[in-house]
Amino acid sequence: MSRPIELLPIHGIGEIGPGDDLAALIAEAADLRDGDILVVTQKVVSKAEDRLVDVDPDVGHKPLVERESVRVLRRRGDLVISETEHGFVCANAGIDLSNVEEGRAALLPIDSDRSARRIRDGLRHRFGVDVAVVVSDTFGRPWRRGVTDVAIGCAGLHPVVDLRGTTDALGRELQVTEVAVVDEIASAAELVMGKAEGIPAAIVRGIDPSWLGDGSVADDVVRDPADDLFR
Amino acid sequence: MSRPIELLPIHGIGEIGPGDDLAALIAEAADLRDGDILVVTQKVVSKAEDRLVDVDPDVGHKPLVERESVRVLRRRGDLVISETEHGFVCANAGIDLSNVEEGRAALLPIDSDRSARRIRDGLRHRFGVDVAVVVSDTFGRPWRRGVTDVAIGCAGLHPVVDLRGTTDALGRELQVTEVAVVDEIASAAELVMGKAEGIPAAIVRGIDPSWLGDGSVADDVVRDPADDLFR
Repeated sequence: MSRPIELLPIHGIGEIGPGDDLAALIAEAADLRDGDILVVTQKVVSKAEDRLVDVDPDVGHKPLVERESVRVLRRRGDLVISETEHGFVCANAGIDLSNVEEGRAALLPIDSDRSARRIRDGLRHRFGVDVAVVVSDTFGRPWRRGVTDVAIGCAGLHPVVDLRGTTDALGRELQVTEVAVVDEIASAAELVMGKAEGIPAAIVRGIDPSWLGDGSVADDVVRDPADDLFR
Repeated sequence: MSRPIELLPIHGIGEIGPGDDLAALIAEAADLRDGDILVVTQKVVSKAEDRLVDVDPDVGHKPLVERESVRVLRRRGDLVISETEHGFVCANAGIDLSNVEEGRAALLPIDSDRSARRIRDGLRHRFGVDVAVVVSDTFGRPWRRGVTDVAIGCAGLHPVVDLRGTTDALGRELQVTEVAVVDEIASAAELVMGKAEGIPAAIVRGIDPSWLGDGSVADDVVRDPADDLFR
């Protein structure tokens, strides 16, 4: 029996700077409960981890995009779709210029799964609450207009839930088997974050407890280029 | 100030067959309220609209996939990634063999935006409740493992919310502008549908009322091949 899920924006976290203790700031702002999924945007994780760099005003952010890319898939005008060293395929290597000081840019965290683990461990050990953590970012997609939020890191959650072997309602084996719940959770959380308002985190409360456990976006979601029909 | 959102599975709709009145069945099973988003899966829409076809046991569903495709993008083994006449790029032209009688397959609705409008109009005129409707389906993505739910049709909702011109929390213009909220809503709803349990519909309650209005997936989400870097 499927249960309702709540999506709760976390207000009052304030501006984040290098060295800020995200676990503590979130614990103070939110009423977290065991079993919650805490979704935190890349931007505040990058700021707390001091992934901010200067943008040379003469050349703009393009040299940064080249530096942060391991492979360029497409270019059109100023737009570059490339693969980052993490294996993410996105625009401008995930470099973010919005909600960042003028003349600065936010690079992706070095290892967003580790970032998620650090927040999860901080909340568990110092604040006594056992939550899964998802780090989200905003990516475009081919074939469809508009951006959506996806996960770039997670901890305490199976990012892809394997329904293989379970049967459908008519008793036959399911054709579609692996659901990327971590990305659906990131997308759901975005609905209460409101980009222009700068809400950097949200709670997803009530997910199936069997989805909690080990896993990482790098290992479970990023597709091996050898298996990828579009790389 | 962003508000919480609730994701509510709709239980008790039962098996759907050709000619079934989805609006009536949903109105009976769910406590819908004005401003709700009702998400209904492609499968039950296709069944109600009698988009079921026989699968020739000698050749399987492959001839159907060819027939329902206007362009094949990739093939590997049994897997075909193709573009449908609607402009969707997905595996096997969106043809569904799970939760369908043995020997039968469910094709995509002919016009899922119209399907959504029909359900929305039925609920409004016959049951007096003003909801937006999203028809969802389960698609894979390049570069990332696992499937997620996206929208193939909608009514009463702006599928892509344009944040262009609004400013970020630091007062500068936002770099990322168009959010495909309709797909984020479809993904969020999937979290309470539980594929193996056969829950065919869910309510997303509490979205920003400014997102309600006109729009369609065909016009607003499907990317024009001429603008598409990956087609």
